[in-house]
Amino acid sequence: MTSGPKADPGRFFEDFRLGETIRHATPRSVGNGERALYIALTGSRFALSSADSFAQRLGLPGAPLDDILVFNVVFGRSVPDVSLNAIANLGYAEARFGAAVFEGDTLTASSEVIGLKENSNRETGVVYVRTTGINQRGETVLAFVRWVMVRKRDRGAPAPETVVPNLAPTVAAEELSLPAGIDLKGYDAGLAGGPHLWDDYRPGETIDHVDGMTIEESCHMTATRLYQNTARVHFNQHAESGGRFGRRIVYGGHVISLARALSFNGLANAFRIAAINGGRHVNPCFAGDTVYAWSAVTDKTALPGRQDAGALRLKTVATKNRPCGDYPAEGPDLVLELDYTVVLPRR
Amino acid sequence: MTSGPKADPGRFFEDFRLGETIRHATPRSVGNGERALYIALTGSRFALSSADSFAQRLGLPGAPLDDILVFNVVFGRSVPDVSLNAIANLGYAEARFGAAVFEGDTLTASSEVIGLKENSNRETGVVYVRTTGINQRGETVLAFVRWVMVRKRDRGAPAPETVVPNLAPTVAAEELSLPAGIDLKGYDAGLAGGPHLWDDYRPGETIDHVDGMTIEESCHMTATRLYQNTARVHFNQHAESGGRFGRRIVYGGHVISLARALSFNGLANAFRIAAINGGRHVNPCFAGDTVYAWSAVTDKTALPGRQDAGALRLKTVATKNRPCGDYPAEGPDLVLELDYTVVLPRR
Amino acid sequence: MTSGPKADPGRFFEDFRLGETIRHATPRSVGNGERALYIALTGSRFALSSADSFAQRLGLPGAPLDDILVFNVVFGRSVPDVSLNAIANLGYAEARFGAAVFEGDTLTASSEVIGLKENSNRETGVVYVRTTGINQRGETVLAFVRWVMVRKRDRGAPAPETVVPNLAPTVAAEELSLPAGIDLKGYDAGLAGGPHLWDDYRPGETIDHVDGMTIEESCHMTATRLYQNTARVHFNQHAESGGRFGRRIVYGGHVISLARALSFNGLANAFRIAAINGGRHVNPCFAGDTVYAWSAVTDKTALPGRQDAGALRLKTVATKNRPCGDYPAEGPDLVLELDYTVVLPRR
Repeated sequence: MTSGPKADPGRFFEDFRLGETIRHATPRSVGNGERALYIALTGSRFALSSADSFAQRLGLPGAPLDDILVFNVVFGRSVPDVSLNAIANLGYAEARFGAAVFEGDTLTASSEVIGLKENSNRETGVVYVRTTGINQRGETVLAFVRWVMVRKRDRGAPAPETVVPNLAPTVAAEELSLPAGIDLKGYDAGLAGGPHLWDDYRPGETIDHVDGMTIEESCHMTATRLYQNTARVHFNQHAESGGRFGRRIVYGGHVISLARALSFNGLANAFRIAAINGGRHVNPCFAGDTVYAWSAVTDKTALPGRQDAGALRLKTVATKNRPCGDYPAEGPDLVLELDYTVVLPRR
Repeated sequence: MTSGPKADPGRFFEDFRLGETIRHATPRSVGNGERALYIALTGSRFALSSADSFAQRLGLPGAPLDDILVFNVVFGRSVPDVSLNAIANLGYAEARFGAAVFEGDTLTASSEVIGLKENSNRETGVVYVRTTGINQRGETVLAFVRWVMVRKRDRGAPAPETVVPNLAPTVAAEELSLPAGIDLKGYDAGLAGGPHLWDDYRPGETIDHVDGMTIEESCHMTATRLYQNTARVHFNQHAESGGRFGRRIVYGGHVISLARALSFNGLANAFRIAAINGGRHVNPCFAGDTVYAWSAVTDKTALPGRQDAGALRLKTVATKNRPCGDYPAEGPDLVLELDYTVVLPRR
Repeated sequence: MTSGPKADPGRFFEDFRLGETIRHATPRSVGNGERALYIALTGSRFALSSADSFAQRLGLPGAPLDDILVFNVVFGRSVPDVSLNAIANLGYAEARFGAAVFEGDTLTASSEVIGLKENSNRETGVVYVRTTGINQRGETVLAFVRWVMVRKRDRGAPAPETVVPNLAPTVAAEELSLPAGIDLKGYDAGLAGGPHLWDDYRPGETIDHVDGMTIEESCHMTATRLYQNTARVHFNQHAESGGRFGRRIVYGGHVISLARALSFNGLANAFRIAAINGGRHVNPCFAGDTVYAWSAVTDKTALPGRQDAGALRLKTVATKNRPCGDYPAEGPDLVLELDYTVVLPRR
């Protein structure tokens, strides 16, 4: 008996071709189960994604799924093709959230290779992809760029021409979108959990989100499996016990989920993430770590054509095992820096 | 940069005013995901909340959500306003379950401050609230009184006039309600899992529920987040490692869930919790503890106007790491005493 | 006060009668919550049970629930009656999957006692049951035989006549069924995640599924509770700490789920499990173990009357803490041998 080459070893650096579009597998319907699990795994409390009646009062058909849940589901599609042999997820840019995702929608994704750069050690390279998630009607729900360091299968494989994409430092206000049909006139801030609207924030302001959430192995693995993300470092203690850290690494998208959920305390009315301008997993998180977060308002802009909502650019920093009352900006405790744009109702 | 006062520190004792009604945040739609997660986190097996077809045979539109799931969701709404700075959840009374909750319903809650009593140490006080949960049609799904010991922000703050509400020792039979339209003629006890109907129980009878359920950190945190309960003691090991117990405390409502789920073995046909007359978390539970339970039938009453169902008043006692074959009534192993009223079909 | 005999101690060996049919309790509606939880607990990625749009393109009303989820739910119904006092789940045979299960269906189950054999130690016996799960329309969704070793209550109870059923070594091709109405013309293998169709596999071929999944206490308990399986060995650390292994045993059906989910890598288009010919939990699994799996194609048959699909008979072996690159067939690391039949699209 011989083994057929049926199992997929994942792509190595030399398998990526500039300009190719990779169609990802496993279409995914997302529904009430995903919504409930996301709340149960993160503690998210944003009213718009928690209650149909709240969303319907604003003109939507029901509660849209949390934007970071959508991010994680789209990201999950791309993992078997893009990052199964990745050493590190280096960064994000140009993430634009599009059509809102509702219960019953089915998401699929594809990625275009937009940059390649072999590292000088010839053992790894950086792959830049633009991943696009669409719903069953073909509407884009999210597109984002990420770059990952990927192993080469063969050190001797020739290096591709180096192409590093020119990425926008921020998603422009014209490209920020809200769920179709939403009208914030009826927005009930008291019911959403905080009195502060767009008008009440100012650039330079910092907010300690106060609370901390401890991560358990079961919680981060369950969240990551929910997204059908298959990256081995999150799941296989037997292999990781001999790996770089001796243990499983928490999927960075789960840390983003926790930071966003914690940010409710101070940003309760930031009902929509419209863009991720940039992001970096500064240090890895492990089971047993407690995640804290703080945010700085780095910019504030009106939204073209809308009097009912405005955008805030935020930098949210998450730490492990370190409260954020003093707004730490560096150090080994930092796990996440996320530069993103949220939308809040205006007075 | 200075910090804006955007994050909510929670109310301290001196922030509560007798007679005020606090409208709680985060409306919550509950659906199939919550039902499945509740079963997966507790092991609940009551047929009425497990199967649409079982409920439809009794005249309901579908399976109502488990009463304790509803309790925990309504309770969860109240935590950020009532008990974020609570030291202890002291007791429950006068809990009446109203309209059944079905998949797709949205729950909101408010609490009226009905009592205040500063403690003699001047550092804490007891707050009594009556919390009411309603559905999207404004129907009350649950109202209950609880009292909690809350820290003062400022020891020197003046004490309010002491008002301790006069609470009924039991919810009267006239106030017990069943899901609207339910008709128990078609109730299939065999399918529900036990031969014993209301007629078969007698006051004074005790039932050992036999089974035990071990609590893991991930399980109790996932359950508590499912309810969007934000009390810090359940989630933050980093902070709790320096706290009173050195570890996270299991949310008492999860212990109630487990005790109710365990009680299936002996009370399989107690399809409805109609009231909680009183309850006390006798000792805290921690991850690693195994919960057992036993129940005593303390009273038995007909339901006004119904020949198809009757009520049993129960005292269910839950213990940790101690089987209940000898019906323990006191000691450091006790974690819960719950005095409540269930409804069973009659022959 | 005396205890009424209300709690169910479960059946002992001498309580089973040859030929009797036991109607199991707790009808169960399965929906979007179960689907999402199953993915989150196992990491399953088969497209057909992941996406409504994928299933609809093949003529189905929506995504059917994963076959092993259905197996575990039906199995769970039978535990309180069949295996509460079981020492070991010895084997499976003649499992035929019938009507596909969709969100909103309600499953009930019954078991016929088809064999009894007291062991020579007179303390235990083997019970053979054929368990049948049906949906709310009375259609069989699954029928299977399992045999378990069950304790006697009373060593002196007389032995029943020994009857060992004559079990088919394999489910015949004529008995394999597909979801009603499915037409695989529109099957999109690229979207499903692998290029290999029925035509590409050959008997004798072996496939290493590469990945490993570490089991946590919380994960296996949550999965097992999801199925309302009440077997004590999975849940009660307090009791098990004095038991055979000193710890909780992972439910064997969860190991089957993990092995099936891992098998996606190499068998992505095996969209349907049509039969389980035999199965054995070779060794127990515990929290902390990492499950790996490999499969051998043991047979390949056309399906009567279908040009669009064919069947593969597989032997999938799961191990603990041992990668399967060398296709281990025996040893203390083996946890599962499953002989089953899957269906794949044909070219």
